[in-house]
Amino acid sequence: MACSFSKVGKGIPIRDAVLKVTGELEYIDDLKLPHMLYGKILFSPIAHARIKHIDTSEAESLKGVKAVATYLNAPGKSFNSALRFAGHDLPRDERIFDRTVRFVGDRVAAVAAEDPEIAQKAIKLIRIEYEELPAVFDPEEAVEDDAPRVHPAGNIITKIINKAGDVEKGFAEADLVFEDKYQLPPVHHGAIEMHGVLAKFDSRGKLTIWSSSQNVFAHRLILAQLFDLPLNKVRVIKSALGGAFGGKLELTVEPVAALLAELSGKPVKLILNRKECMVSTRTRHGAVINLKTGVKKDGTITAQEFKVLTNAGAYCTGSLNVLGAMSHIVFQLYRTPNMCFEGRTVYTNSPIAGAMRGFGSPQVFLAQQLQLNKIAKSLALDMVELQLKNLVRPEDRDPLYNQPMGNPRPIDCVKEAAKIFNWYDKNISQDAGRFKRGIGMAVGAHGNGCFGAHRDYSALALKLNEDGSALLLTGTHDMGNGAVTVQTQIIGEILGLNPEQIECVEADTDSTPWNLGDYASRATFVTGNAALKVAKALVREIVVEGAKLLGEDENNLYYQNGWVYDKQGRKRASLIEVISHAQGVSQRELMAVESYASISGPSSYGAHFAEVEVDTLTGQIRVLNYVAVHDVGKAINPLSVEGQIAGGIQMGLGYGLREALELNEKGAVINSNFKKYKMFKAREMPCITFALIEKGGTTGPFGAKSIGECATVPSAPAVVNAVCNALRKYYNKIPLSKIEI
Amino acid sequence: MACSFSKVGKGIPIRDAVLKVTGELEYIDDLKLPHMLYGKILFSPIAHARIKHIDTSEAESLKGVKAVATYLNAPGKSFNSALRFAGHDLPRDERIFDRTVRFVGDRVAAVAAEDPEIAQKAIKLIRIEYEELPAVFDPEEAVEDDAPRVHPAGNIITKIINKAGDVEKGFAEADLVFEDKYQLPPVHHGAIEMHGVLAKFDSRGKLTIWSSSQNVFAHRLILAQLFDLPLNKVRVIKSALGGAFGGKLELTVEPVAALLAELSGKPVKLILNRKECMVSTRTRHGAVINLKTGVKKDGTITAQEFKVLTNAGAYCTGSLNVLGAMSHIVFQLYRTPNMCFEGRTVYTNSPIAGAMRGFGSPQVFLAQQLQLNKIAKSLALDMVELQLKNLVRPEDRDPLYNQPMGNPRPIDCVKEAAKIFNWYDKNISQDAGRFKRGIGMAVGAHGNGCFGAHRDYSALALKLNEDGSALLLTGTHDMGNGAVTVQTQIIGEILGLNPEQIECVEADTDSTPWNLGDYASRATFVTGNAALKVAKALVREIVVEGAKLLGEDENNLYYQNGWVYDKQGRKRASLIEVISHAQGVSQRELMAVESYASISGPSSYGAHFAEVEVDTLTGQIRVLNYVAVHDVGKAINPLSVEGQIAGGIQMGLGYGLREALELNEKGAVINSNFKKYKMFKAREMPCITFALIEKGGTTGPFGAKSIGECATVPSAPAVVNAVCNALRKYYNKIPLSKIEI
Repeated sequence: MACSFSKVGKGIPIRDAVLKVTGELEYIDDLKLPHMLYGKILFSPIAHARIKHIDTSEAESLKGVKAVATYLNAPGKSFNSALRFAGHDLPRDERIFDRTVRFVGDRVAAVAAEDPEIAQKAIKLIRIEYEELPAVFDPEEAVEDDAPRVHPAGNIITKIINKAGDVEKGFAEADLVFEDKYQLPPVHHGAIEMHGVLAKFDSRGKLTIWSSSQNVFAHRLILAQLFDLPLNKVRVIKSALGGAFGGKLELTVEPVAALLAELSGKPVKLILNRKECMVSTRTRHGAVINLKTGVKKDGTITAQEFKVLTNAGAYCTGSLNVLGAMSHIVFQLYRTPNMCFEGRTVYTNSPIAGAMRGFGSPQVFLAQQLQLNKIAKSLALDMVELQLKNLVRPEDRDPLYNQPMGNPRPIDCVKEAAKIFNWYDKNISQDAGRFKRGIGMAVGAHGNGCFGAHRDYSALALKLNEDGSALLLTGTHDMGNGAVTVQTQIIGEILGLNPEQIECVEADTDSTPWNLGDYASRATFVTGNAALKVAKALVREIVVEGAKLLGEDENNLYYQNGWVYDKQGRKRASLIEVISHAQGVSQRELMAVESYASISGPSSYGAHFAEVEVDTLTGQIRVLNYVAVHDVGKAINPLSVEGQIAGGIQMGLGYGLREALELNEKGAVINSNFKKYKMFKAREMPCITFALIEKGGTTGPFGAKSIGECATVPSAPAVVNAVCNALRKYYNKIPLSKIEI
Repeated sequence: MACSFSKVGKGIPIRDAVLKVTGELEYIDDLKLPHMLYGKILFSPIAHARIKHIDTSEAESLKGVKAVATYLNAPGKSFNSALRFAGHDLPRDERIFDRTVRFVGDRVAAVAAEDPEIAQKAIKLIRIEYEELPAVFDPEEAVEDDAPRVHPAGNIITKIINKAGDVEKGFAEADLVFEDKYQLPPVHHGAIEMHGVLAKFDSRGKLTIWSSSQNVFAHRLILAQLFDLPLNKVRVIKSALGGAFGGKLELTVEPVAALLAELSGKPVKLILNRKECMVSTRTRHGAVINLKTGVKKDGTITAQEFKVLTNAGAYCTGSLNVLGAMSHIVFQLYRTPNMCFEGRTVYTNSPIAGAMRGFGSPQVFLAQQLQLNKIAKSLALDMVELQLKNLVRPEDRDPLYNQPMGNPRPIDCVKEAAKIFNWYDKNISQDAGRFKRGIGMAVGAHGNGCFGAHRDYSALALKLNEDGSALLLTGTHDMGNGAVTVQTQIIGEILGLNPEQIECVEADTDSTPWNLGDYASRATFVTGNAALKVAKALVREIVVEGAKLLGEDENNLYYQNGWVYDKQGRKRASLIEVISHAQGVSQRELMAVESYASISGPSSYGAHFAEVEVDTLTGQIRVLNYVAVHDVGKAINPLSVEGQIAGGIQMGLGYGLREALELNEKGAVINSNFKKYKMFKAREMPCITFALIEKGGTTGPFGAKSIGECATVPSAPAVVNAVCNALRKYYNKIPLSKIEI
């Protein structure tokens, strides 16, 4: 890639960093409206039951209570909280409140009251008689014919099979075939900000929702359908997001607050506490993965077969999408000629699984990378060499669709990381008695956008102010990842503006053009392309206006860095002169609107190397060294790329070593707080050495590929492999906090 | 005009009517931000002085006081609060705080404190030593060479002369020449909502202003200059407007709140009370008008000469513009072949005059219509006949610019009003002893937009939602006049949508395209044309997309009322199908942005007829009957047109009969509250019969002409003429509450 960029490729702090540091950024919980009430939800204490009788009279008569909502006075419509766009075909198995509850944490009722304490008190005054039903929590039990049915049509929501080559032939050609079953738990997103919403219905019949949301347009659509409103009568505004990680992609508390607002005639704020977030919102899909791999003695993989069972929990939400993403991504990391993916997602009476950073990739690559580590050991091959033999190369094509893969560079990642880590100079394991050390590595991939799955476009509007500064209306929900800052860098590069000169309005259905939502690592890859396109469209407007100003043919002019030049390279008019002419003479707004639709589905790659020390007495695992190298095509903002990688590693370490949402035999989460659920803290994190492979993608803006999700994929297997190597044991179940040493 | 419209021409309530009625609409005073402080301004008690010494130490040390601002710590930059656009050339004679104070009510200092009471207390603790300077209040005295100078360059701000024909020749041809001097007081706008602002500076250096403003883009420009900020770092958001009438067009309290926010580091809310509004913001220009008119015995006017002196008060603000508007409008009512307008606007040490509904027209037409009433009496002609003889006709051209006048219909107005009023069947005066009755009439005109004066365009953005409802981003500031509702009717007509299906975001510099501001009766005439243009642009997008969907040549298709038709008139695709194709297949936003620049400066016309009864014992005047007929070209929303006319009459009655901001000899306003300043109350208003002349304008949307300002112009002279006729006396000074009967 050319290195002559002045804005793209510079590491700059994300737009609102200073507001976060100073505490000025207003989150949902900072918002107040006149006459605002406080909402509280009553969650089911039973995993599966039918409500025989519900008595809200005591709650209703408590002073200060303004509304009580149950299935009796809620819209009875079914919906799917992961709906992305009009016509999106997903099972509609949820209701705001249903007569049947399907997991411990399912919504039963809600109250709006003048203060949170009264609401809490009122919740406890709601009397419910349940008829308990048999429940199932284990996905493998749930697929049995005689399993209790979570929904009437049966527990298997869908089955996806993808194939390339002939796996039977491939296994026949193998010298060795490995078969392992991996068990992966559901985990919590751990966004520091809880799920929250502020809902208001006005007398004009307009519903306004301030939500800590990753998908305002999708949420508008669902709410409009639920409350029978035209879309122009629903406004969803993304408030500041204090972390999301996929957990705020789907609709959760929004319809409850809207219903309470409708019933009470007052604005209602509803903020979950940590326990409620952990129990009632979303988790990463727990999964059981049966993985069968055939290899030659030289390490060449001849065939691989994934049999995946994911636990959707009590409602489908985005489980189809997650399984679909898995079913594709596994074909993009290795050159394996014969592959098969067979996946099922099933209902259980467990907490709902949904989108979470990595969207299926962490599960499948964890199984795969753990097994490869075992295979390397079995074949007495170096793990790095095994990787290099099998990883996809830049010229390879996606075996499912026979498409180019956008210059995939996992090999560069592995080589660079191995070099930085000094892989070849270190011992796989060092046994020092009580403290055993080991090194491990893993590779991972994750997609860029939703191309292939369904529509994937973003529209942006960009206009120039009188002084040459600009306004960007973007449907992007910056979740702390700097996605919008990246857009200002791209636009700044094209317009010759400092990113600080571009003000942004984010994700407000009444202000910004449509966006599919912020998930699938699409903000830089897809919306970044939209930023490039809209900036170029605005440049065309500038040239057209410059031509008018200069009385010249616009084909003889071009724009660069604040100036209209002629083809002879002479500066002819400044941007300010052009704007002044547009406003004062042509009397028009210099504004452009463009939509960019994704045209490819390449993957991003990363290789992580870790060195760990296990205290065999206490089981404590310390991560001593860490190297992360990612193929990002082009880092538009290297500072936030590093931030994403660091955050991804923090999540991956937790996934591999510590985190799991644990249920008791009744299906209740038993570790629903941060004392019991131990995420990695900043002080526990290793120092990380980062490196980026910037050899360009073929379709991203300036060659950029996504990083947000891919960052977390290789992390858990790298560190688990390091522990396995340290202990010379091969674990098939995470997190490792539960292992016997 | 065709009558086949389905949205245009229907009287519908304005968009936010229900929110006003229910009290849900949030005005500035309803807004609260965390850590918000309350601002209070110290106003000068002296008409002209230099500050010798200012001691804020006591105020600063009061507990709860967070900032004290004076000229010592304020930006020293000069500005003009009526600046409309970048490069607008107006005298910059104001500062946020100046060392010299120039009227009783000038800003001296301001305080931000934790509550309003503390702020009020702190204001009283500021010690100031003034060096009093000689002051001048009367505009006729102010033009004298030896008058005290309000500003160093002298008191005459500008002089404008416009001429058509040869007035000397015209007076020579006249049978009679009348010369009168009219004295018109400054009056208060009387918006029920006070001037207010909420200002916030964040750590990113961004200034956000919520303001009860008629001109967010202009205010952004001035604030950016004052605080040395790029425009993208200033956001001005129009909050709900509880009336404005021109009084909120110019910047008043905004820079003070911004400065306090900057100094304190906290958001600051600053709301004036009624006294402060009346004293310190703006007034209608007080004026002295010497009017000389030559007439033939048959009533034909041969020449007319206006010599106008307007009182700008202590700062220029928009005085040039108001004088400019006067200097043009007087040429558009009669066919008078020889006319001259000579106007001056002068500084005095009085409250600042600025924009107010009618923008110069009420003053000049009041003088003219009063004199015509006297001329009619003198010539023993019927006033109506005198009007009909002289009024412009549809084919007439603007004598100043030799332009068509856009189908002017004052004659239709007069004829229709006379008929409804039964003018010819009533006695001009009826003397019943103590109670004397009289009838009177007057004609008035007012412009449509700023064409001719300076740039005048509006840009709008319009997009379609998935369900065919729409979002309009409009820079229009609806002040209760329904201007935005009219835009939804225009767009609804073109797109076949119910206006309720179009959601609108109004006047927010970070969300909406640029708009010149809401004044000059331009919202329907100019921005309405922009609405027409952007709707048609969106229709083109619909047809283009429909062609893709149908696989047909777009030239064979057209759009109407929710359907794409082929040229054979067959319905081929519904709007929803087209949108669905755009989003699902073409993957693009159906959105249009258009700017409309005004191409003409026609006038609107109205004739008002009034019958009054004067109680000669008490001086009380009752308005018994009232007829108002206006040439509106086409009433897009007849309901709000009537509302505008009714409101205009309320203002005109007050202007003619009761209202005047009165100063004592020291220049202090002595009637700065609604007990002493008696506007017409709803229960005092006459029943009004309305009629509209809808013969179309040539350049307005659907033929519409403006009504907001014109509505008030004929009202004061109609009712004053009725009183004059009742009493058979000719008064040259308003309001009539001060006359001797």
